[in-house]
Amino acid sequence: MIKAGIIGSTGYAGGELVRILSGHKDVEIKWYGSRSYIDQKYADVYRNMFQIVDDVCMDDNMEKLAAQVDVIFTATPQGLCASLVNEEILSQTKIIDLSADFRLKDVKVYEEWYKIEHKAPQFIDEAVYGLCEVNRDAVRGARLVANPGCYTTCSILTAYPLAKEGLIDMNTLIVDAKSGTSGAGRGAKLPNLYCEVNENIKAYGVAVHRHTPEIEEQLGYASGEKVTINFTPHLVPMNRGILATEYASLKKNVSWEEVKAVYDKYYADEKFVRVLEKGQYPETKWVEGSNYVDIGFQIDPRTNRIIMMGAIDNLVKGAAGQAVQNMNLMFGLEESEGLELVPLFP
Amino acid sequence: MIKAGIIGSTGYAGGELVRILSGHKDVEIKWYGSRSYIDQKYADVYRNMFQIVDDVCMDDNMEKLAAQVDVIFTATPQGLCASLVNEEILSQTKIIDLSADFRLKDVKVYEEWYKIEHKAPQFIDEAVYGLCEVNRDAVRGARLVANPGCYTTCSILTAYPLAKEGLIDMNTLIVDAKSGTSGAGRGAKLPNLYCEVNENIKAYGVAVHRHTPEIEEQLGYASGEKVTINFTPHLVPMNRGILATEYASLKKNVSWEEVKAVYDKYYADEKFVRVLEKGQYPETKWVEGSNYVDIGFQIDPRTNRIIMMGAIDNLVKGAAGQAVQNMNLMFGLEESEGLELVPLFP
Amino acid sequence: MIKAGIIGSTGYAGGELVRILSGHKDVEIKWYGSRSYIDQKYADVYRNMFQIVDDVCMDDNMEKLAAQVDVIFTATPQGLCASLVNEEILSQTKIIDLSADFRLKDVKVYEEWYKIEHKAPQFIDEAVYGLCEVNRDAVRGARLVANPGCYTTCSILTAYPLAKEGLIDMNTLIVDAKSGTSGAGRGAKLPNLYCEVNENIKAYGVAVHRHTPEIEEQLGYASGEKVTINFTPHLVPMNRGILATEYASLKKNVSWEEVKAVYDKYYADEKFVRVLEKGQYPETKWVEGSNYVDIGFQIDPRTNRIIMMGAIDNLVKGAAGQAVQNMNLMFGLEESEGLELVPLFP
Amino acid sequence: MIKAGIIGSTGYAGGELVRILSGHKDVEIKWYGSRSYIDQKYADVYRNMFQIVDDVCMDDNMEKLAAQVDVIFTATPQGLCASLVNEEILSQTKIIDLSADFRLKDVKVYEEWYKIEHKAPQFIDEAVYGLCEVNRDAVRGARLVANPGCYTTCSILTAYPLAKEGLIDMNTLIVDAKSGTSGAGRGAKLPNLYCEVNENIKAYGVAVHRHTPEIEEQLGYASGEKVTINFTPHLVPMNRGILATEYASLKKNVSWEEVKAVYDKYYADEKFVRVLEKGQYPETKWVEGSNYVDIGFQIDPRTNRIIMMGAIDNLVKGAAGQAVQNMNLMFGLEESEGLELVPLFP
Repeated sequence: MIKAGIIGSTGYAGGELVRILSGHKDVEIKWYGSRSYIDQKYADVYRNMFQIVDDVCMDDNMEKLAAQVDVIFTATPQGLCASLVNEEILSQTKIIDLSADFRLKDVKVYEEWYKIEHKAPQFIDEAVYGLCEVNRDAVRGARLVANPGCYTTCSILTAYPLAKEGLIDMNTLIVDAKSGTSGAGRGAKLPNLYCEVNENIKAYGVAVHRHTPEIEEQLGYASGEKVTINFTPHLVPMNRGILATEYASLKKNVSWEEVKAVYDKYYADEKFVRVLEKGQYPETKWVEGSNYVDIGFQIDPRTNRIIMMGAIDNLVKGAAGQAVQNMNLMFGLEESEGLELVPLFP
Repeated sequence: MIKAGIIGSTGYAGGELVRILSGHKDVEIKWYGSRSYIDQKYADVYRNMFQIVDDVCMDDNMEKLAAQVDVIFTATPQGLCASLVNEEILSQTKIIDLSADFRLKDVKVYEEWYKIEHKAPQFIDEAVYGLCEVNRDAVRGARLVANPGCYTTCSILTAYPLAKEGLIDMNTLIVDAKSGTSGAGRGAKLPNLYCEVNENIKAYGVAVHRHTPEIEEQLGYASGEKVTINFTPHLVPMNRGILATEYASLKKNVSWEEVKAVYDKYYADEKFVRVLEKGQYPETKWVEGSNYVDIGFQIDPRTNRIIMMGAIDNLVKGAAGQAVQNMNLMFGLEESEGLELVPLFP
Repeated sequence: MIKAGIIGSTGYAGGELVRILSGHKDVEIKWYGSRSYIDQKYADVYRNMFQIVDDVCMDDNMEKLAAQVDVIFTATPQGLCASLVNEEILSQTKIIDLSADFRLKDVKVYEEWYKIEHKAPQFIDEAVYGLCEVNRDAVRGARLVANPGCYTTCSILTAYPLAKEGLIDMNTLIVDAKSGTSGAGRGAKLPNLYCEVNENIKAYGVAVHRHTPEIEEQLGYASGEKVTINFTPHLVPMNRGILATEYASLKKNVSWEEVKAVYDKYYADEKFVRVLEKGQYPETKWVEGSNYVDIGFQIDPRTNRIIMMGAIDNLVKGAAGQAVQNMNLMFGLEESEGLELVPLFP
Repeated sequence: MIKAGIIGSTGYAGGELVRILSGHKDVEIKWYGSRSYIDQKYADVYRNMFQIVDDVCMDDNMEKLAAQVDVIFTATPQGLCASLVNEEILSQTKIIDLSADFRLKDVKVYEEWYKIEHKAPQFIDEAVYGLCEVNRDAVRGARLVANPGCYTTCSILTAYPLAKEGLIDMNTLIVDAKSGTSGAGRGAKLPNLYCEVNENIKAYGVAVHRHTPEIEEQLGYASGEKVTINFTPHLVPMNRGILATEYASLKKNVSWEEVKAVYDKYYADEKFVRVLEKGQYPETKWVEGSNYVDIGFQIDPRTNRIIMMGAIDNLVKGAAGQAVQNMNLMFGLEESEGLELVPLFP
């Protein structure tokens, strides 16, 4: 049994980690960290867990935790993981960080977009960007994995094969993304109130959203050139799901089937990536509760652009599910262990 | 491996059966019946099943099906199962009927409330009412199980211990129930359109809803007297979930703890019934996607009434989950096999 | 032009007052009070009001306000209006209090249910309970009107004619009410977050909700006897609307038509009460954005109970609309002035 | 009093016309046309209209209707208006066609995108494209107005000033639009069921949506060049509202203030266009139930693109409200008569 600890177990991503790990046959959660609910029963914070989880919430003591568990998940705001991690901890336990602290290789970019000082830049190089479909081998050997962001997972995987194969002009890439409200977290803030979100849609963080440099960096590796994109997130009145609609000019004349073949080259054997058939476009409901990424696309010969669409459950493939996928790789388990979650419909 | 066939696999309850059975280690679905989608790929009807289910939809031929499978689930409108079943079929296979055809023991009551002639009254006596927590032993030996209705499962289990122990005056029982829209099925009808349901709540079927006699019959068995109730269903703008709020006069002066003890007498060992702690009331979101029934209650000394509340996922414990629970019992499997579904939140 | 001031103009009820008064030809809002947003532009708090309202928010100074306006609306938490009002203020201006401070005639009942000391009991007798359809004449001459609660407006009007005419056994009355989330206010609290409310329904305040004694008092006046009821509110995933489903035993054998005649006796000439035709039940969407109360009912001969249903928009007839209706009466205007709001559908 | 007739009064756009015209002091609706509900009471089709509209639904006889009314609104599927209109009708009455029949000046483009033969091409030249803010003068003198589509109204007005002033490279324009579900109409189709739309978002009509050539034509007039764009509509789980997010490369280096000045040049005096302040982006909820278009924008110096966002209520400014605005112009009334609708929030 792998012993796992979660720092930040009472946010929505933390709660999803608990849901998924509860069904993972090789893992035992030993530590439900939550600065806000210390000493309260976890099931009093998330009543869906009544009679399933009996533990109480613990503090954020990563050193103490490191001595007890084989892997620590940090599902906390940016800055926390970097402020706690050190060599001694990493020598004792593996860390999967669901925050942004170790996702960007250039610390200046991190500090510019996140407006905070990075407290552990010495581990940035070592950290592996945990997008399993792209970095599988590196993840296997990692001590510290930077779990990708929700928008970024969806945005990158949707465009990755075409960027990699040079099919699209990277300077023309635009990502228009739509997310359910759980992405905003469980903090009690006015803009997240039911009556403010319901029957409403809006863009936010236009041209300044922090997932932008993460997408740019990863698609830059794929395409071999510096990538600068427009990324516009929108808040949608639903709990879960991200849909990314991506636009790019094609660099050559290709048919739907040729593009499909490119996607298949990278994803045909990927359990969690489903490239849809012709004329099918992804819908977030079809992946709800599961670790799937659904991808569809359409070529517009009038404009010579391709419109790529990807859908994920932001809390699963966009956070907790991908974290468990990374954990499975790091511990030599079947990559899909505990993640055979059939999407819930309706 | 148990071979299962589903007649009516493309309704919402049928779809949920597929979801649950897909994760059941001892079952293999051999027949995806769907009169409306014959020869179409099942995954084209429910795209969440893309790359999970590869089969195409079959017709409703129960005789042919009986020869191939160990158990048939009928998730069809009332009347169909009764019109197809016969002794030869029942001698070859077990049937779990998710429709109302075999739930009521008095065929006249059935015909009066459902306004159709019963085509197989000879099997009514044999059929076992598949409310596992109440009829577990009878289910084990059954060939034909009448899977309870969604409203009824929730309404009965919420009041059952108090009816059984004579704590409440059955003549005063009122059930005010609220259901998500999946209970209305996947038929393309104007009242079920998004814009008609969203931002709206209404009562329907007031004083005439067909689940009324089913609740009355079962609570009549429990209390040992003839029971006549008011049952009022409401349509709520959400996909899943039923909440039943039930009112009854107490026959004697009891404390919260005494009532809790009565609930515990019946449910303390029930895996799928969670009686909540003092001051906690059930919410449908806490059971979404799972087979749980959550029950809470409050005594009002001012009126000497007890207010009991129960919540289920109408497609799981209210339909497909309970059907699988029945199947597990009928085949001697662990009752919770394939049903260890942690509720999805949010 | 009537000069109006609003204390608490940035809550949802306050915002609705602004919306309605903006379209009222005889009223000018002179004071947008809001303790939380002093000196901020009102349109920055409610951006729907951009280019419609140019004013900034003011503090809660009722004395200063009284010297400037003809009528003050207090859309504030309980306790505030009672703590500010005094004889000098009431000699200068009229007050319509949307809080509970002056709704209950027995100060002990107020203090028991609201758990606060009443700071101005000397005005309780004078205050008129502003349920226009019941107390129209008294409202006309009032200086201080207690605007009814949202649940209570709906609950009382739905049962009022039957209570008044002695058709129902008041001891059997049960009110099961369902409300949209705007009733919970605009405070940033975790239970009101989108992800907590969406896809969920729950009861709350069971047996202890503060609107209970208000319903009891008013239906007591109507029926001429002491009334004790069960009132159970539920939170529904929608922004606006209240549906009250009410159950009571009939005291005599009556037909649908006879009951309809009783409703018509009281409501046939009421512009804002619509008693539906046979077989029709109210839906909250049909009254959204309007000042209507829709009422329907069904008799159940099996149980000898009547099920009455009423629907309102909680922010209009349940708060701001009714307040304006009261204002119209107090100032001798056409009662429906500014309230000819056609329900928004869908 | 202007006498108005509505063909297609029982669709969502038709219903909204009834709502708005009910509050218009100079208009009387004489004909509630509805092929599907002939002889049924209008208020039985839309119960929000109970006791407001007493009429019954009539057939689609445009000739008969033309003799009785001053203006006909056709809120019907494409093809119907063109198949009914003739010179005699137009000599008797004005027509405001809410369908697409007369929006496109090139009949071949119409027939290519709509896949139907145009039955009245002789009126295409005469028809005025009724985007009031752009074609106000032409509308005033028109007999036949082609009321713009919902997506197109929002998409065009959001980009119009920048296209007109040559600020953006029209070849780079991409419109990613999101619509509430009422845009799909009231037809009973499976994809529009509550459970299919709720908790879901998807793109549809990718690269082939019929509003594309309409946007292209109008922005072509504005910019003076042939325009070819990508337009991608998405279905959002809400009743009302369209948000268009538009991307284009800037042709020169401009500041936010300079762009704002360009918007103000065209819209500062427009009652129904609200250009938001710096840092503000439109939300559909802020315009719900009103005739406003809210517009915001952001410049991204990293990519040299501008991101423009526009929001409308698809049933008001996107359909019925704009139709009434056109009617007001055609009859020499105040342009905003009957349209002083304050947005409903929440």
